[in-house]
Amino acid sequence: MTEAKAVADVLVQALPYIQRFRGDAIVVKFGGNAVVDPVLAARLAEDVVLMHSVGIRPVVVHGGGPQITELMTRLGIATEFKDGHRITDGESLEITRMVLVGKVNREIVSLINRHGPVAVGVSGQDADLLLASERHPELGFVGDVEAVNPHIINRLLADDFVPVVSTIGTDTAGQAYNINADAVAGALAVALGAAKVVYLTDVEGLHEDLEDPTTLIRQTTVPELERLVEKGAIGTGMIPKVAACIHAIHNGVHSAHMLNGATPHAVLIELFTDEGIGTMITQS
Amino acid sequence: MTEAKAVADVLVQALPYIQRFRGDAIVVKFGGNAVVDPVLAARLAEDVVLMHSVGIRPVVVHGGGPQITELMTRLGIATEFKDGHRITDGESLEITRMVLVGKVNREIVSLINRHGPVAVGVSGQDADLLLASERHPELGFVGDVEAVNPHIINRLLADDFVPVVSTIGTDTAGQAYNINADAVAGALAVALGAAKVVYLTDVEGLHEDLEDPTTLIRQTTVPELERLVEKGAIGTGMIPKVAACIHAIHNGVHSAHMLNGATPHAVLIELFTDEGIGTMITQS
Amino acid sequence: MTEAKAVADVLVQALPYIQRFRGDAIVVKFGGNAVVDPVLAARLAEDVVLMHSVGIRPVVVHGGGPQITELMTRLGIATEFKDGHRITDGESLEITRMVLVGKVNREIVSLINRHGPVAVGVSGQDADLLLASERHPELGFVGDVEAVNPHIINRLLADDFVPVVSTIGTDTAGQAYNINADAVAGALAVALGAAKVVYLTDVEGLHEDLEDPTTLIRQTTVPELERLVEKGAIGTGMIPKVAACIHAIHNGVHSAHMLNGATPHAVLIELFTDEGIGTMITQS
Amino acid sequence: MTEAKAVADVLVQALPYIQRFRGDAIVVKFGGNAVVDPVLAARLAEDVVLMHSVGIRPVVVHGGGPQITELMTRLGIATEFKDGHRITDGESLEITRMVLVGKVNREIVSLINRHGPVAVGVSGQDADLLLASERHPELGFVGDVEAVNPHIINRLLADDFVPVVSTIGTDTAGQAYNINADAVAGALAVALGAAKVVYLTDVEGLHEDLEDPTTLIRQTTVPELERLVEKGAIGTGMIPKVAACIHAIHNGVHSAHMLNGATPHAVLIELFTDEGIGTMITQS
Amino acid sequence: MTEAKAVADVLVQALPYIQRFRGDAIVVKFGGNAVVDPVLAARLAEDVVLMHSVGIRPVVVHGGGPQITELMTRLGIATEFKDGHRITDGESLEITRMVLVGKVNREIVSLINRHGPVAVGVSGQDADLLLASERHPELGFVGDVEAVNPHIINRLLADDFVPVVSTIGTDTAGQAYNINADAVAGALAVALGAAKVVYLTDVEGLHEDLEDPTTLIRQTTVPELERLVEKGAIGTGMIPKVAACIHAIHNGVHSAHMLNGATPHAVLIELFTDEGIGTMITQS
Amino acid sequence: MTEAKAVADVLVQALPYIQRFRGDAIVVKFGGNAVVDPVLAARLAEDVVLMHSVGIRPVVVHGGGPQITELMTRLGIATEFKDGHRITDGESLEITRMVLVGKVNREIVSLINRHGPVAVGVSGQDADLLLASERHPELGFVGDVEAVNPHIINRLLADDFVPVVSTIGTDTAGQAYNINADAVAGALAVALGAAKVVYLTDVEGLHEDLEDPTTLIRQTTVPELERLVEKGAIGTGMIPKVAACIHAIHNGVHSAHMLNGATPHAVLIELFTDEGIGTMITQS
Repeated sequence: MTEAKAVADVLVQALPYIQRFRGDAIVVKFGGNAVVDPVLAARLAEDVVLMHSVGIRPVVVHGGGPQITELMTRLGIATEFKDGHRITDGESLEITRMVLVGKVNREIVSLINRHGPVAVGVSGQDADLLLASERHPELGFVGDVEAVNPHIINRLLADDFVPVVSTIGTDTAGQAYNINADAVAGALAVALGAAKVVYLTDVEGLHEDLEDPTTLIRQTTVPELERLVEKGAIGTGMIPKVAACIHAIHNGVHSAHMLNGATPHAVLIELFTDEGIGTMITQS
Repeated sequence: MTEAKAVADVLVQALPYIQRFRGDAIVVKFGGNAVVDPVLAARLAEDVVLMHSVGIRPVVVHGGGPQITELMTRLGIATEFKDGHRITDGESLEITRMVLVGKVNREIVSLINRHGPVAVGVSGQDADLLLASERHPELGFVGDVEAVNPHIINRLLADDFVPVVSTIGTDTAGQAYNINADAVAGALAVALGAAKVVYLTDVEGLHEDLEDPTTLIRQTTVPELERLVEKGAIGTGMIPKVAACIHAIHNGVHSAHMLNGATPHAVLIELFTDEGIGTMITQS
Repeated sequence: MTEAKAVADVLVQALPYIQRFRGDAIVVKFGGNAVVDPVLAARLAEDVVLMHSVGIRPVVVHGGGPQITELMTRLGIATEFKDGHRITDGESLEITRMVLVGKVNREIVSLINRHGPVAVGVSGQDADLLLASERHPELGFVGDVEAVNPHIINRLLADDFVPVVSTIGTDTAGQAYNINADAVAGALAVALGAAKVVYLTDVEGLHEDLEDPTTLIRQTTVPELERLVEKGAIGTGMIPKVAACIHAIHNGVHSAHMLNGATPHAVLIELFTDEGIGTMITQS
Repeated sequence: MTEAKAVADVLVQALPYIQRFRGDAIVVKFGGNAVVDPVLAARLAEDVVLMHSVGIRPVVVHGGGPQITELMTRLGIATEFKDGHRITDGESLEITRMVLVGKVNREIVSLINRHGPVAVGVSGQDADLLLASERHPELGFVGDVEAVNPHIINRLLADDFVPVVSTIGTDTAGQAYNINADAVAGALAVALGAAKVVYLTDVEGLHEDLEDPTTLIRQTTVPELERLVEKGAIGTGMIPKVAACIHAIHNGVHSAHMLNGATPHAVLIELFTDEGIGTMITQS
Repeated sequence: MTEAKAVADVLVQALPYIQRFRGDAIVVKFGGNAVVDPVLAARLAEDVVLMHSVGIRPVVVHGGGPQITELMTRLGIATEFKDGHRITDGESLEITRMVLVGKVNREIVSLINRHGPVAVGVSGQDADLLLASERHPELGFVGDVEAVNPHIINRLLADDFVPVVSTIGTDTAGQAYNINADAVAGALAVALGAAKVVYLTDVEGLHEDLEDPTTLIRQTTVPELERLVEKGAIGTGMIPKVAACIHAIHNGVHSAHMLNGATPHAVLIELFTDEGIGTMITQS
Repeated sequence: MTEAKAVADVLVQALPYIQRFRGDAIVVKFGGNAVVDPVLAARLAEDVVLMHSVGIRPVVVHGGGPQITELMTRLGIATEFKDGHRITDGESLEITRMVLVGKVNREIVSLINRHGPVAVGVSGQDADLLLASERHPELGFVGDVEAVNPHIINRLLADDFVPVVSTIGTDTAGQAYNINADAVAGALAVALGAAKVVYLTDVEGLHEDLEDPTTLIRQTTVPELERLVEKGAIGTGMIPKVAACIHAIHNGVHSAHMLNGATPHAVLIELFTDEGIGTMITQS
C-alpha cells in the first residue's frame, strides 16, 4: 500500500500541471550527446511520449555535433571551427545533412515510436519550415534563422503527431544551410506560440558562479540573465542557449528551462512536480 | 533526488495506461457513503479530474441511500424496505429526487469543479436519458432501466465536460422512477461503449470466502463469477453490482471493477499501476 | 372551412415573427407560482417547445419561493426575510438548493420532455455557469451575479437542447449562494446575446398607475421606465425585474417583456402576434 | 382575448406537426394555373416560406402549360397534343424552356423572395439534375425521367435555400427534353428521401365517384388507389399524378397528397392541422 | 516526340499561372455574340471547364442583346434605344427575362455540362443576388447595380459548381430590372473578391488610336485608361466595360482584361501563357 | 498566333485527363539515376508540381542505389549483392538510411520546393508508415513490405502537401530494414487507393522482345504480362517492378506505367495526352 500511496501522491501533485499545459506546445531541444547514450535517449523518448499522452504537444528539436564529427573523421575530412561554428563547405554540408536528417533524427523517431506510431521526422527544408540566411561568408553554409514557416508543424500537431525537427534550412535561392539547433528551438517556440522551451544540456543549469556547482540558479528572469551575461557568468557553450531563451521569452514564450539531460526523466520532473529541476527563466 | 526518482517511476509506469485509455469513456459509480465523508469525496473528485486531464472521459454515477433516509427521518416519514428496495410512494419519490438531484449530485459537481469548470449534473430525466419501467407494483416508484438514450451524455463528453448522473428515470407516460444506481452504471457503460465500469464500494472487492478477508479475488471472469453467485459467495449488497458487471461485460464493456472507495485514490491506483487494486472482472 | 381560415390567418400572421426570431436565444423567466399550478405549467412548457420547434433557442430560468417555504415549514424551520430577501444560513441554503434543483427544475424538465427529449436541467454550479458574490453579510448565502460563464448553455443550445436553469451560483472559494432568478434571467440574456428576456409574473404588466388596472403600459422605453421607478409607480415585487430589464437592454438585449403567466399561452401571443401582450420595454 | 385564444389554439395544434416534419424535405408541385392567378400564387409562396421558417425543407416543382400555349399562340405556332402530351419540335422546346425557366420559375422565385432571400431557381439541366429519355419518337422532345441526380438540390437545401425546379432535362447526348412536372415531383421526392409529395391541383382531391363531389376520399392507400384506377374512377388529368404518387410511396416517400390549389393556404391546412385537407395517400 | 515536347512546353509554361490562380474566383463576361456562334460558344465552355478543372473558380456572366431583339421582332414589338439602353416596358422586360434566363443562360449551362455536371444557372433574382435601382424613368425597367449579395454564388463556388449568371435584378419593392451585364461582371468580381474580370468582346482589346488596329494596347493602368477615356480613344460600345473595369480595380480586383471572344480559346491564352492576349488593365 | 494555337490544343487535349484524375492519388517511383542527373531531376520535380497544381495528389517514392554505393566506397566498405539485393549489415543499413533519408530524399524535396512549399520528406519509420519483415537471413537488414500504415501520408495529402517517401521500414521489434522501393511504390498505391502507380526507369518500357527496341509494348494487361514473365521477356531489373505492378492492379490500382525517366517530362506526356508514352498495364 506504500507503493499505492506514492502513486497517488505523484499523480495528484502532477494534476495541476497536466491541467495547465493541456493543449500547449512545448519545444524540447535534445543535444547531440543525449542521443549518443542509448539509455538516456530511451528515457527522453519516454518523457516525450508521456507529455504527448497527457495532452501536451511536444516538439523535439535536435542537434548532432558529435555524430557529424565522427562521420567527417571516417571520411578523412578535417573539421575547422571558428567562433564555435563548424566551417561548412558544400561537402561538409552534405555530410551534416545526412547525419542530422538520416541518422540522429531517425534514431529519435524510432525511440519514440516504440511507444506508438506518433513521431514524424521533419527537416527545415520540408514545406519550407526554416528560412535561413548566411551567418558569415567565412563560415560557408552556416545559417541563421531568417524566418519560421510553422505550417507543417502546426498541421502535424493538429493531427496528433510528435514532430522531430532537424535544423537544416534553405535560403530564398534554395541553398541549404546548417542552423544552430539552440536558435531554432527558440524561434520555433515563438512561431508555435509554445508555452515553454526546454534545453537538455550536460550541466545542471545556470550558476551564479560558473566554478561553484553549489550556486545553481533555480529560477531567474530575463533582466537578471542579461546581468549574468554581462558579468561573464555564462559559459561559452551556454551563450547561444541563453540568447535563444531571451529571444523566446521576449516574444511570448512563458518560460525557458535548462536541465541536465543526463538526469533520468529530468523533463518529467520539471513539468510535473512542484519543485521542478534545473534553471527556469521567466519574463520578470 | 529520491523524490524525483519516485515521480519518474510513477509516471513512466502510468504511461501505457494513459495511452491505452485515452479517449475512452469510463463509468465510475460512487456509493452514497463515499459522498458522506468529505475527505473521501474530495479525493474521489480529484481522481475524476485526473482521469479527465489525461484524456479519459469519466462519467460519474451516484447513489444516495443514507442521505435519502436522513431527510425522510427529518420529515417524519417511515422508510420501509422490501427485498432491499425502498418502497417508494409519490411523496418518497419527490424526496428521493430532491436529495439525489438537489443535494448529492450538487456536492459531487462542486467538488469536481474546484479543479476547473468541467462537471455538469445530469438526471435521468434530462433529455430522456433513462427510460424506466416499474419493477414491481408493491415497490411503488422503483424502476428498472428499460433503455438508455445516451445522446446528452455523448454531447457533454464531446464538449469535454464530466457528466455526473443522478438515477431518476421516466417511463413512457412521463412518470418518474428511482432506479438502482448500480444497474444504471452498468447500462450506461454499455450505451456509451465505455472501456470500464468501476464500482466504489465499502469493501475491498469480491472474496472467494465471504468470511475470510484474505481470500480477496484480484482478477476473475464472468463464468467464474457466475459460479461464485451460484455457490453463494457474493454478499447481498454486492448482488446488484455483480449482475450489472456481468450485463456490462456481456455487452462489450472490457472490464468491470470493485474497489474500496475508502482507500485513498483507489481509482488512480486501479487505472494507472501495474498491480491495480480490488477485483477486476473480464469476459474470460 | 372557417376553422381552416383561422389556421391560415394565425400562421400567416406568425410568419414574420418566426422568421425574425429564428436562431435567436430568448430567455424566459418562470416564477415559482407558474410551476405550482399544473395546468399553467403544462401550457408554459408547450410554449417553450413551440418556440424550440420553430427554430428559436429558448432558455428557461425559474424561481421557487413558495416551494422553498413549504419545505422549510415542513422541516420546522422559520423563514425570515429582510428587504425582500430570505435570510439564508447553511441549512436553508441546502434546502433551497434541493427544492430548486431537485424539485422545481425537475418538474419543468418533465413537462417539456413530454413533447420530446429536449429539456436539460442546469444549475448555476454546473460548469461554473454562475459566479456569485455575497450580497450582504446579514443575508447569509444570498448572492448577486458576479459573472456569467455561458459556455455550458451555449453548448447545449448548439446541440439543440432547451436548458432549464436553477439559480444557485458559487463564489470563487466554492461556496454556494442562492441568487435572485430575475437578476439571473437578465444577466444570462446579456451573456447569451439573447434577443429578448421575458418575465412571466402574476400581473398583466407594468401600469402607469399601480392602483388602476386600466393604465397598463403596452410599450415603453428604458428612460421612461426610469422615470416610472423614480415616481414610485413600480410595485416592490417588480423592482428586481425592472432593474434586470434595464440592465439587459443597456447591454444589448433587444427587448424585455412582462407578461401575466396566468394568461394561457401568453408567451406565444407575445411572440407570434402583431398585438403582443403585457408590457414591452425597448432601448428608446 | 378571443383572438389570443385562437392564436394559442392554432399554434398548439400545429406543434406536433412542426416537430414531426422538422428537417424533412417536402416536395410541392404547383400547377401552371396556380401561378396564373397572382393572389393564389402569393398565398402559395407564403405557405412555402412558412414551411421553410419552421425548419421544413420545401422544394417547389412547377409546370406551365397555359403560359407555354400563350406564347406559342402569340408566335403563331400551332400546338398539337397526342395522348395528353404536347408534340414538341425544336422550336417548341425552345419556347417551352423559355417560358418555364425564364417566366414561370422567375415569378415563383420572386414571390417567395418577397419574404426573404431564400428561393433559388433550378432547371433540370443545372448540374445535370434530371436525366431524360425520349418518351416516344412521335412526341419529339417530350422526355421521361430516366434518373435524378439530386446533388445540386441537396446542396441548396443544406445551405438553407428553397429550390424552385423547372422540369427541362437532358439526355446523355446533351439534348434537352420537356418532362412532365408531376412525374418529376414524384421522382425528386424519392431521390431526396422526402417525407411527402404534395400536388396542388384544380380539384378537391380524388373521388370515389368522379361525378359526385360528395364522395371526396380523405385518406387512401396505394392498393386502394390501384383499385380505383382499374375501375376508371380517376380522371384523365389525374392519371400522371396518381402514377407519380404510387411510384413515390413505393420508393419510401411517407405520403402523397392531392389538394385544391385554389383553397387559400391549402398546404398549411394539410400540414399543420389534425383534420388536413384533400386526399392523402399512404402505403397501406 | 515533337508533339510530346510541345505538350511539355505548354504545361510547364502554364504551371506558375495555375499555381497563382488556384482557388481564385475569376469572372468571365460572355457577350451575346459569343453565344450566337455555336463553335465559339463550345470553345468558351471548354475554357471555363479547364479553368474549373485546375482549381480556379470561374463565374460566367452573360448578355444576350441579339437574342432579345430577335424574339422582340418575332413578336412584332419595336425596340427603341436611348443612350445605348433598350427602353424596357413591362412586356419587354418579360421577354428580356425569358430570353436571358430561359434561353441564353440555358445554352451556356448545357455547353459547359457536356464536360461534367458543374454549371448551374443563376439569375440576379435568385436569393436576391442583384439589388437593382432604376437608371432613368424614361428607360423603364433598365436598372443599375445597387448592391450585390453574393451569398448564393459563394455557396455554389464552395460546392465546386460553376455559376452562370443572368443579369436580371430586383429593387427593394420586388420589381425586376434588366441590368447591363458589363456592369454586373465588374460589381460581382468586387463582391466575390475575384482575382480577375475578363471581358470577351468582338475586338482585339483597347487601342491607342481607335482607327488603327496596329495600336493595340497590351497592358495599361487605371490612370492611363482614364486619360484614354478623356481623349476619346474608347469606342462607345467599350465605355461601360471600361467603367466597370475601373470600378473593379479600384475595389480590389487585381486585373481586368478585354479579349476578342472570336479568338479560339482566348481565355486560356490570356490565363496560361507568358505573352497573354488582348488588353490587361491593372491598378498602376 | 501559332503559339497560341498550340497552347489551346495542348490544354484542351489535357482537359479530360485533368478532370479524370482530380483528387486522385498517383504514386510516382523515381529511380536513383533520375536524381543523379540534376536537369532530369529538376524536370521530374516540375512534373510533380504540375500534377499537384491541377488537383492530383502525387506521392513520390524514391530509391538511391548509386548514391548508397558511392558513400560505401568512400568509407571503404565492400558491397556484396545476392539475387540482386545488397547484403546489409548494421553498418550498411545505417549508411543506406543516411543516404536515402538524409541525401536523396532531401534533394527531391528541395527541387520540388523551388516551386512552392509543398514537399515533405517522410521515411517508412515516421508514424510507422512501413512495417517490414526480414526477407532472408543471409541478406541481413533487407526487408519486405509486411504492411503499410498510410495514416501519415493520408494526413499530408489532406493538408495539400506532396509526400516524398524513403523506403526504410521497421519490424515489430523496432529494427530498421531497407525495403525495395519498387515494392513500396506498389504497396503504397494499394494502401492509398491510388489511381495509378508510375515507374520511371531507364528504358522506354516493356518490350515484346527484349533485344528489339522496336517491339515496345504500349498497352498490356496483367494476364498478358504474366505470359511475358513466363516466356522470359522481362529483363532482370524489371522483375520487381513488374511484380509490384501486378500486385497493385490486383488490389484495385487502375493502371501501372513504365516510363523512361530520361525522356523530358515523360510523366506529363503520359498523364495529359491521348497518346501517352511508355507501357501501360491494366487489369484486362
